[in-house]
Amino acid sequence: MNRIHNFNAGPAALPLPVLEEIRDSFLDFKGSGMSITEISHRSKGFEDVLNDAVARTRRLLKLNDQYQVLFLQGGASLQFCMVPLNFLAQGGSADYVNTGAWAGKAIKEAQIQNKPVKVAASSEDRNFCYIPRNIAFNKDAVYVHLTSNNTIKGTQWASLPDTGKVPMVIDMSSDIMSRPVDMAHIGMIYAGAQKNIGPAGTCLVIIRKDLLDLCPDHLPTMLNYRTFAEKNSMYNTPPCFGIYTISLVLKWLEETIGGLEKMDALNQAKADLLYTFMDASGFYKATADQGSRSLMNVTFRLPSEDLEKAFIAKAAENHLGGLKGHRSVGGCRASIYNATGLDAVRDLVSFMKVFQSRS
Amino acid sequence: MNRIHNFNAGPAALPLPVLEEIRDSFLDFKGSGMSITEISHRSKGFEDVLNDAVARTRRLLKLNDQYQVLFLQGGASLQFCMVPLNFLAQGGSADYVNTGAWAGKAIKEAQIQNKPVKVAASSEDRNFCYIPRNIAFNKDAVYVHLTSNNTIKGTQWASLPDTGKVPMVIDMSSDIMSRPVDMAHIGMIYAGAQKNIGPAGTCLVIIRKDLLDLCPDHLPTMLNYRTFAEKNSMYNTPPCFGIYTISLVLKWLEETIGGLEKMDALNQAKADLLYTFMDASGFYKATADQGSRSLMNVTFRLPSEDLEKAFIAKAAENHLGGLKGHRSVGGCRASIYNATGLDAVRDLVSFMKVFQSRS
Repeated sequence: MNRIHNFNAGPAALPLPVLEEIRDSFLDFKGSGMSITEISHRSKGFEDVLNDAVARTRRLLKLNDQYQVLFLQGGASLQFCMVPLNFLAQGGSADYVNTGAWAGKAIKEAQIQNKPVKVAASSEDRNFCYIPRNIAFNKDAVYVHLTSNNTIKGTQWASLPDTGKVPMVIDMSSDIMSRPVDMAHIGMIYAGAQKNIGPAGTCLVIIRKDLLDLCPDHLPTMLNYRTFAEKNSMYNTPPCFGIYTISLVLKWLEETIGGLEKMDALNQAKADLLYTFMDASGFYKATADQGSRSLMNVTFRLPSEDLEKAFIAKAAENHLGGLKGHRSVGGCRASIYNATGLDAVRDLVSFMKVFQSRS
Repeated sequence: MNRIHNFNAGPAALPLPVLEEIRDSFLDFKGSGMSITEISHRSKGFEDVLNDAVARTRRLLKLNDQYQVLFLQGGASLQFCMVPLNFLAQGGSADYVNTGAWAGKAIKEAQIQNKPVKVAASSEDRNFCYIPRNIAFNKDAVYVHLTSNNTIKGTQWASLPDTGKVPMVIDMSSDIMSRPVDMAHIGMIYAGAQKNIGPAGTCLVIIRKDLLDLCPDHLPTMLNYRTFAEKNSMYNTPPCFGIYTISLVLKWLEETIGGLEKMDALNQAKADLLYTFMDASGFYKATADQGSRSLMNVTFRLPSEDLEKAFIAKAAENHLGGLKGHRSVGGCRASIYNATGLDAVRDLVSFMKVFQSRS
């Protein structure tokens, strides 16, 4: 077996011990004589898995009783429409901050529904290379929508803005569980699992219970947050394998890494190593502004597109995979989520030095 | 390792060679140095998986160019609302046949949207123990909705009804790929994967392309069939692991079983063995009418609820799992999907004989 260093933006690297546990138990889950993919979602075995994933999420993020932890399907993309469908049904408007492609899609899905949304701030003027500051939010908005980390443009909110009494609804798909979160003004977090906590096909939703009162009765059952809240995510058959994998990743975070403070320190060390090297290189150029740089997705350019092509190809030959930038922007990107270790970043920097010296 | 005979209703048994292939390649998918859960959905490796699953579906069901094969999330439950959202947006009404809990939920999701739906036939008068016949469908309906197999009540359409020019939309979650399908009057098939073709969290949708013209522009993007049709199921990150597993199950169906005619013969043999034994036993009583009996979910009762409890417990001790009836109806149920072999049914019948003789 020849595992590579995986810098994919998502689906992305998972912790090796998690993959090994899945493999080793794949034909016989906990003595059931069945695979985790074959057991009933109504069995004690699966209920334990689900409740474990919920409990670990609560502990890792230090959630109080105001919040409920749900697992849905459809990725963040379905949340883009569910958020306004549920929270703006009884009137009112929402503020959105436009920090790139994913935020833009969230705005579009509210507009398709003819919901009154205001783009309270945008970094489009400089091609989304920074996070807006000093935003004047509407004090009467039902919610403020943010994208905490922008995978394509490589930016991230260093800290959350002050929205006063207006709850934030945050798409954390690409930095969930990468650092502690101040929940003080958060109404809801959603996150497609496939970047930091599991395989594609499961979406973590953390919702403050008072927001459930906004969900209308007449929505299709599968589009109403209350359906999932009332049935502990089990109104219909949930994505069992995804929830199982998430439970193992969260166990690794708690028991091997030691929690989100430690994960954050590791993630900062990884990003510092890479950004510091690039800033001094005179060759690799990070695309995001200082102060807005993502600890998860390090986007950068080389002096020419030909060099970028050669860099990505040569890196792949050296077991460094997934370094191509998003197809919409080009360039290079090293996604260094939780499961991509300091060793991988060190190997990447070593390779970058050699590549530069030979170019 | 101690694998059991798995009679779960869903999630349910998967073919052992499929589980073994997933296990054996789980840390290194096709020499990529990554797990199937870690590779990009935009990679050649995953595109091949997706296209293979589509091609195998087309071959197995003998689909012509009128049909498109899609993979969505949210299970059949999300389809219950997407079907009327998409197909009744421009007016018109739909006929539904009510054959039990799942059909009833499909009807409810259309009614929540205030869509004009007519229950063209129902078997509720006799607790859904039969499939209605000689139904007078509305010739001007946009579609007729059927549930081809009813997991809870153990009934199945032996053959599809004549709906004339009105396209059928069929929930085949629990008998998809169990037998050949006459596509002549079918507009759409949908099937949650977790019974016959894969793990929970992926929904197969086969749609006749002319129906895409009914889908309105103003729907949320993730709720519009055209979104998935235009992007080959890759508008957003698809449920990669589910699609991968489905591709392996379909490969097993084609290459090991030898196609749907052979699968059908096997499934008939399995069901015949079980029903014939029960009918002669004077002890086990099948709950569905002759002629309406499901080849997939054999529902039955014992002379008392105490005996049923003892039967289920004793069966589990003998490595026969999942025999409890649905929590809404009680009794017993042996789900004998594709991956539950004739050997499992033989062992079950042997056990049933012994249990009867000792009761």
